[in-house]
Amino acid sequence: MIKYTTCYKIKGVRRCYSKGVIIIENVYDLLIVGAGPAGMTAAIYAKRAKLNTLMFEKSFPGGQVVNTYEVDNYPGLPNISGYELVDKMRSHAENLGIEIKTEEINAIDIHEPVKVIKTDKNEYKTKTLIIATGAKWKKLGVKGEKELTGLGVSYCATCDGAFYNGKTVAVIGGGDVAVEDAIFLSNLCKKVYLLHRRDELRAVKILQDKLFELENIEILWNTQVKEVIGENKVEKITVINTSTKDEYELEIDGLFVGIGTEPNINFFEDILDKDAQGYIITDVNCETNVKGIYAAGDVANKPLRQIVTAVSDGAVAVYSAERYIIENF
Amino acid sequence: MIKYTTCYKIKGVRRCYSKGVIIIENVYDLLIVGAGPAGMTAAIYAKRAKLNTLMFEKSFPGGQVVNTYEVDNYPGLPNISGYELVDKMRSHAENLGIEIKTEEINAIDIHEPVKVIKTDKNEYKTKTLIIATGAKWKKLGVKGEKELTGLGVSYCATCDGAFYNGKTVAVIGGGDVAVEDAIFLSNLCKKVYLLHRRDELRAVKILQDKLFELENIEILWNTQVKEVIGENKVEKITVINTSTKDEYELEIDGLFVGIGTEPNINFFEDILDKDAQGYIITDVNCETNVKGIYAAGDVANKPLRQIVTAVSDGAVAVYSAERYIIENF
Repeated sequence: MIKYTTCYKIKGVRRCYSKGVIIIENVYDLLIVGAGPAGMTAAIYAKRAKLNTLMFEKSFPGGQVVNTYEVDNYPGLPNISGYELVDKMRSHAENLGIEIKTEEINAIDIHEPVKVIKTDKNEYKTKTLIIATGAKWKKLGVKGEKELTGLGVSYCATCDGAFYNGKTVAVIGGGDVAVEDAIFLSNLCKKVYLLHRRDELRAVKILQDKLFELENIEILWNTQVKEVIGENKVEKITVINTSTKDEYELEIDGLFVGIGTEPNINFFEDILDKDAQGYIITDVNCETNVKGIYAAGDVANKPLRQIVTAVSDGAVAVYSAERYIIENF
Repeated sequence: MIKYTTCYKIKGVRRCYSKGVIIIENVYDLLIVGAGPAGMTAAIYAKRAKLNTLMFEKSFPGGQVVNTYEVDNYPGLPNISGYELVDKMRSHAENLGIEIKTEEINAIDIHEPVKVIKTDKNEYKTKTLIIATGAKWKKLGVKGEKELTGLGVSYCATCDGAFYNGKTVAVIGGGDVAVEDAIFLSNLCKKVYLLHRRDELRAVKILQDKLFELENIEILWNTQVKEVIGENKVEKITVINTSTKDEYELEIDGLFVGIGTEPNINFFEDILDKDAQGYIITDVNCETNVKGIYAAGDVANKPLRQIVTAVSDGAVAVYSAERYIIENF
């Protein structure tokens, strides 16, 4: 780090003297955190708008969708693997010149219009920031679950339901998401088991009424999954009845875990307003409670978490960032 | 039309007697109006959710984007023509089984939970309706404009600006959109002319301040375009100064018309709430003021009209329609 004698600020950009010479510090127009569909789209829009932009991804680019075996609801690219889709997005963004830093952000200082981001390796200054760190599905934490994810174990009925046409599936959970998933899947599947660890559902009454009407749904109360079993694809699950302690096997083709998601939050936890589930609250322009900071994709509070809604957020956030820069710098 | 003796309604679905035999009329789960990116995405999501769905397009599928020479901001499909992109979306949706009717809708009856749609050829009943009829850019209405659209004449700087890197362009208009476009293009282009027919701008002050600071933007006041000239691409425009009546030519590579857009509205004009510019007002779930009717894509009021925001709306609208059907039928 260079030590400055004096610093002052013009239009939010800090200019410092070092041995009598003015040094204008490098200030990015935009930093993007997270390289999933929302972040990649933000990168594409930002590079096309010639914003001086840098992207951060702590592990590998792609986000959650990398683990999806087959994506069939991104219009124009049917029947593509999650990995292949995000790889196309990554090369699209990289061909436009986006640079991706494999650094984890530890802290952020928002006391001045120019925000200061600290990673495990460096310090960066930026006029705007898009947080696109995504969310993760809550896991059951049972044997076989991780190994068979994408091979019959799914966390999203809207995403993967269509692959179980005419088959037998189990849904885990008792809230709105699990019950909606079970109803949704009952239209496609021959048979749907709904497994809930309690003896009553948390879902809203109207959904429960609908659920109880459907003949191909069987509810297994007080029931928990103990193990997911299969060679290269889900074949069965071992379940346990928590009242009777009975243990038995269920033959299924797919397991839908509907016990909710949680946002990937860390460095910005104390700065941004969040909803009850921890998702970042944004307005229609993807702006958070801090001016110049935007949230895009699954990390934001929104009605539907899908690739198409993430890419939309990425574009909207950049559009908002552009206007913020025009108006403030 | 079959004449019924008696009709009654169960859960919103009308059942009628004809000569003593009960006939359940065909009621669609969802009708989609408009086959651009928003409508196509709605079709993909609806077919995957096994909703009994039909799509209407009065002319040819694709929407406004068909006329875009090159699209480079749809993540994963870089450097694609507008035609090719929507053709991929169409085949994606058609492979999932969507049927597209080439019929124009003339009237809609929303007095009962089951809505009745009347086209120039038939009558359809549906539980839900997604309006994705798009918008159109306002035209200058001058000679050469239509012929050179997509060949140098553009109505969207965010979409096409990147193709004019280092070149000379003219922007037409004096409102926020035109001034934002001029500022945006000044980062990319060697020279930007801003032509406005009056002697002051309508744009917000802060945008004007920014505009006046930029050295590669030249504002031509009291100036209107008379003709767009070029062989296969824009080469120059003839302009007229409305005060002096002087007529002269400007050599340019691109012409950006920024005088606004207007939504494609017709049959639903008297039913749905609209904003001052005529766009359909929707909530975060794409729902309009009429329960079970959704607006998606450019026809809806929203901060940014792009392919990515349209596909997002299409998915959100279907998700909302699904929940509406579960709760009401």
